[in-house]
Amino acid sequence: MTDSLTAPAGPGAVAAPHPDGGPGPGPADGHEARTLLARARAAVDPALRSALESLPAPLRRVALHHFGWEHPGGAADGSPGGPGPADDARGRAGGPGGAGKAIRPALVLAAARAFGGEKAEAASVPAAAAVEVVHNFTLLHDDLMDRDTTRRHRPTAWTVFGDADAVLTGDALHALAQRILARDPHPASLTATARIADCVVELCAGQQADTALERRQPTEVALDEVFAMAEAKTGALLGCACAIGGLYAGAPAADVEALDGFGREAGLAFQLIDDIMGIWGDPLRTGKPAGADLAARKKSLPVVAALTSGTPAAAELAELYALPYDGGDLDPAIRAVERAGGRTWAQERAATHMARATRELARALPDPERAAGLLSLAAFVTRRTT
Amino acid sequence: MTDSLTAPAGPGAVAAPHPDGGPGPGPADGHEARTLLARARAAVDPALRSALESLPAPLRRVALHHFGWEHPGGAADGSPGGPGPADDARGRAGGPGGAGKAIRPALVLAAARAFGGEKAEAASVPAAAAVEVVHNFTLLHDDLMDRDTTRRHRPTAWTVFGDADAVLTGDALHALAQRILARDPHPASLTATARIADCVVELCAGQQADTALERRQPTEVALDEVFAMAEAKTGALLGCACAIGGLYAGAPAADVEALDGFGREAGLAFQLIDDIMGIWGDPLRTGKPAGADLAARKKSLPVVAALTSGTPAAAELAELYALPYDGGDLDPAIRAVERAGGRTWAQERAATHMARATRELARALPDPERAAGLLSLAAFVTRRTT
Repeated sequence: MTDSLTAPAGPGAVAAPHPDGGPGPGPADGHEARTLLARARAAVDPALRSALESLPAPLRRVALHHFGWEHPGGAADGSPGGPGPADDARGRAGGPGGAGKAIRPALVLAAARAFGGEKAEAASVPAAAAVEVVHNFTLLHDDLMDRDTTRRHRPTAWTVFGDADAVLTGDALHALAQRILARDPHPASLTATARIADCVVELCAGQQADTALERRQPTEVALDEVFAMAEAKTGALLGCACAIGGLYAGAPAADVEALDGFGREAGLAFQLIDDIMGIWGDPLRTGKPAGADLAARKKSLPVVAALTSGTPAAAELAELYALPYDGGDLDPAIRAVERAGGRTWAQERAATHMARATRELARALPDPERAAGLLSLAAFVTRRTT
Repeated sequence: MTDSLTAPAGPGAVAAPHPDGGPGPGPADGHEARTLLARARAAVDPALRSALESLPAPLRRVALHHFGWEHPGGAADGSPGGPGPADDARGRAGGPGGAGKAIRPALVLAAARAFGGEKAEAASVPAAAAVEVVHNFTLLHDDLMDRDTTRRHRPTAWTVFGDADAVLTGDALHALAQRILARDPHPASLTATARIADCVVELCAGQQADTALERRQPTEVALDEVFAMAEAKTGALLGCACAIGGLYAGAPAADVEALDGFGREAGLAFQLIDDIMGIWGDPLRTGKPAGADLAARKKSLPVVAALTSGTPAAAELAELYALPYDGGDLDPAIRAVERAGGRTWAQERAATHMARATRELARALPDPERAAGLLSLAAFVTRRTT
């Protein structure tokens, strides 16, 4: 469910200014966010590459494939990875290579900078790298469990190397993340390790809830359950990234928790927007056909909101969802979600969560100038998909 | 391959004195080792149970099943788990329940005690629990990858809860192990965390090598590869356990490395003995039919030694191994390994590795009285399976 949050941010994928506003504040052109993402990618890539290089060869090749770094002509020369001319040249939004758009490391660095300036930002690079490794370990395992075949425009690791190597490389990456923190002499590294461990448990619970929801009847799923799953699966690590940045900058405990809340709320706003895109998104921008989530009978937030709306359209949608997709016209289902209020509800809820995110952030960083970096990142991940 | 090293040590499973000596020193009746194992079980179980209780419910039930703690009438009341009257009453060697025989935590505690007495031993309990949790996370994932259906006389987690829940619960246990260490105020906890992370990478590499070896032609496998795999898969965590006990007792770096070497060598001795048992073991004691490893066409150490012996029996064995087992008489294969020298070689190599283990330990602990606990544990895990 976090595809567009983890896809490479190649030039083609960058959001144009949203025509009708969209949730969240921040510069309309996303320039600041793109700068922060590129800086984060450049800052953490050396640590990521050196961690991956330390793996035994059979696991290293799986990890390099997963990060999109094994291609000759890619960034395997040690230069900063991520989007660039090499990706551009291969065409398509975001390009076929690249290690993703480093939103989580960027949140760590931006939070550290907001509380401790450049010095704290520089000191938090290992923690930012650890968070990115954790994220990638969970993606590797999630792709296997979900039997997803494509990630970042490339075949997923399990399809290339088999189930066992995908499980083992994920486990090894998880261990690498700990090692990066355990070897980091920063006084906050132990607290960060504990916080990441708690977050991984929550990520696992979120993925477990997601796979369990997949097996349930659509009409048996409550909206609260889907929110709880989305917060655990998407919000928790965004919150953890912000909190760790604060920890590394020596922020007070209450501010660290406010940073965590900011990331979680932004994550929920992102998930709602992503779910909207899964139904009404422009295929040219999402890379998926319109209504893709409905064809897959996904119990996304707008769908469950529609199903539980008590409207005549809800009954109609439930009837459609009771049968597997037959390859036919998706318009009746799309219209049913819309008539049941699913789209409006999701847009309003996304705005609500972005407002909450902004409020949480203001608790920790009342000075708008210091909050600007984090806000621009939150606005970018929510706006770019609308 | 670590079945008998991880099986519950119920009364029925305890080794009788070995008739013809067997490798390794230590008291012949294993009394001291059994006492240490029971003490380790009692010491770490509260930490393990409290860690498991902290998991979200859907992951907790998988973890409790894996540890053998979910049965009413078992030890789910919070009392120390492991073998006891409840297991006994259910019959069979070791009983159907129980969390295993705690060899790794016992090694942590014994090493800490040897270097720092009772106080250091008590302080190392969280580290011992973390090592045991790491061990169990790898078992959970290995069972899934190997499609093993039985562990500790009970159905494996993936057969009961499915692949996704097995992967996720393993991941969550891995995170719990880090959290136990990260929340441990002991000054050695950060170093221990890094050491465990390195060990997990090695365990993953060992399991990867094992699954890769399974796919290769028997005649294409070199003995060195099997040894490297066994050291990574079995020796590394035994070495890590001993090293962490030393770290927690403030042992000098050279002694910590000697402890690691002791555990690794003991692990190799164990693996050789276990492989001998997989071919010539008494079915009543191994719980497997005689020749089980040959029926499964396993590339165990005695088999590869036989295949690479250059003897006429090697060619005969290669011919038998070229075909899948047809359910017929295993005696020709058993005799071929024996005539090719596989059994004698394995017995001699096991003795060599136990001698090396003893030598490593003497480097760190020249006083035999202080070394006695660790030696008795090493003797126990190697002797009990002969």
